[in-house]
Amino acid sequence: MTERITSRQNPRVKHLLRLRDGSHRRRQGLFPVEGAREVGRALASGWPLACLYYCEELFSGEAAFALLERAADTDGLECVPMAADAFLRAAYREGPDGFLAVARRRERDLADFPLSEVPLLVIAVGIEKPGNLGAILRTADAAGCDGLLMADPRCDPFNPNAVRASQGAFFHLPFAAVSGGEVRNFLQERRIEPILTTPTAGKLLYEADLSGPVALVLGTEDRGLPAEWLSSGGTRVNLPMRGVTDSLNVSAMAAVALFEAVRQRA
Amino acid sequence: MTERITSRQNPRVKHLLRLRDGSHRRRQGLFPVEGAREVGRALASGWPLACLYYCEELFSGEAAFALLERAADTDGLECVPMAADAFLRAAYREGPDGFLAVARRRERDLADFPLSEVPLLVIAVGIEKPGNLGAILRTADAAGCDGLLMADPRCDPFNPNAVRASQGAFFHLPFAAVSGGEVRNFLQERRIEPILTTPTAGKLLYEADLSGPVALVLGTEDRGLPAEWLSSGGTRVNLPMRGVTDSLNVSAMAAVALFEAVRQRA
Repeated sequence: MTERITSRQNPRVKHLLRLRDGSHRRRQGLFPVEGAREVGRALASGWPLACLYYCEELFSGEAAFALLERAADTDGLECVPMAADAFLRAAYREGPDGFLAVARRRERDLADFPLSEVPLLVIAVGIEKPGNLGAILRTADAAGCDGLLMADPRCDPFNPNAVRASQGAFFHLPFAAVSGGEVRNFLQERRIEPILTTPTAGKLLYEADLSGPVALVLGTEDRGLPAEWLSSGGTRVNLPMRGVTDSLNVSAMAAVALFEAVRQRA
Repeated sequence: MTERITSRQNPRVKHLLRLRDGSHRRRQGLFPVEGAREVGRALASGWPLACLYYCEELFSGEAAFALLERAADTDGLECVPMAADAFLRAAYREGPDGFLAVARRRERDLADFPLSEVPLLVIAVGIEKPGNLGAILRTADAAGCDGLLMADPRCDPFNPNAVRASQGAFFHLPFAAVSGGEVRNFLQERRIEPILTTPTAGKLLYEADLSGPVALVLGTEDRGLPAEWLSSGGTRVNLPMRGVTDSLNVSAMAAVALFEAVRQRA
């Protein structure tokens, strides 16, 4: 039985606070997972958790105790009770629900990335905002997509905002963060057609055939797709833009493209 | 010529700070508009601005001076120079670009809400997060939608996060915040069919005919659509959900539904 943490100055509280820093997360190979729903999804997916901190005073109902029991039954997972004062210091969100885990960073290798018979992938190129990344993970998972490849990401995929916005899809949908060149080689080797979303395309998304093995390739909102992607083959598509802004938010674009693929594949 | 504001204690700085509070915004009938892009879009749309605060030391290029000139030429718009110290105190965002306006709250009346020949509307029921609201405004504007009606919103439509997430669509797309009953009467009177997105629907979104006068009705993520909407007629639709989460984010759902309507109407 691990001793209850009562002090805000406890080294483990400091350890949790340091995990807010991206480069520290990278060095440690760890990231924080906050909230009962997120911890529950991580456990259900068999994601490797190093430690669970919990605060019964903040639990909101029976389900929280059931989740704690499930965590305690998980091999190799240390469960550490915390007093409210210390927990509130360590928690990231406002109104925490008493669950804060430390998980091991884990990505899929491209070499054995799991693919269905007719793959549907999303490629996020140069993505900058963890919130957008999490939103895309959530929508891609809901659409039954095979996985998400981040090509040359400009943010840490293990940022707490990505985990949160994904609503737990983070622990379910396979993903990898690699270089753009590696992603392009991977698509070529596996004979998956890149569908390049770009405002300069002559073809509408709806006119492209998304029923075969395809990867929906999304750029950033301000820069779009870099030249090495646009010159790498594949089909260029766009959406009609009728308002004052000349682009969709990248997660809105992902949602439209993913569910157009779902429609065509139904 | 209005005198330059140099003190962080200036009453006008305090006035700007108070506008962060929703009930104060409502009482004053005002809201803040921050950033060159947002101020530019407000001016271009003829939105009523009460006052523009600007800080030349924070301007990033020629375009900023051109925008200031345009603002100075706008009838009835007071332009007030501010020293960097005072401006940084009043600014909401990190890394402000020297533009912060105070605008008058303005909504469309349902009685003369502008509608095209075959209207396409979005109805957001009980929306809670200003960021989602802004994201929906942006996507709806891009899709060439007639407007957005917020039925019984649980957030202030004039929250700075809504303005920001909309990328300026806030000033372009007609919107109104009214009660659910008023929205339902409006749809009935104008013979616009409600398309109710709900997980319990037997019909897929793609199977519904969105080519006529339709309103895409979206509930909140946790509660869905309230009973009075579900029992009010219209067509119920859903999307296949294949992942761990049982719903899309409301702005992702809006994007999918709006561009499915665009596809059918092309």
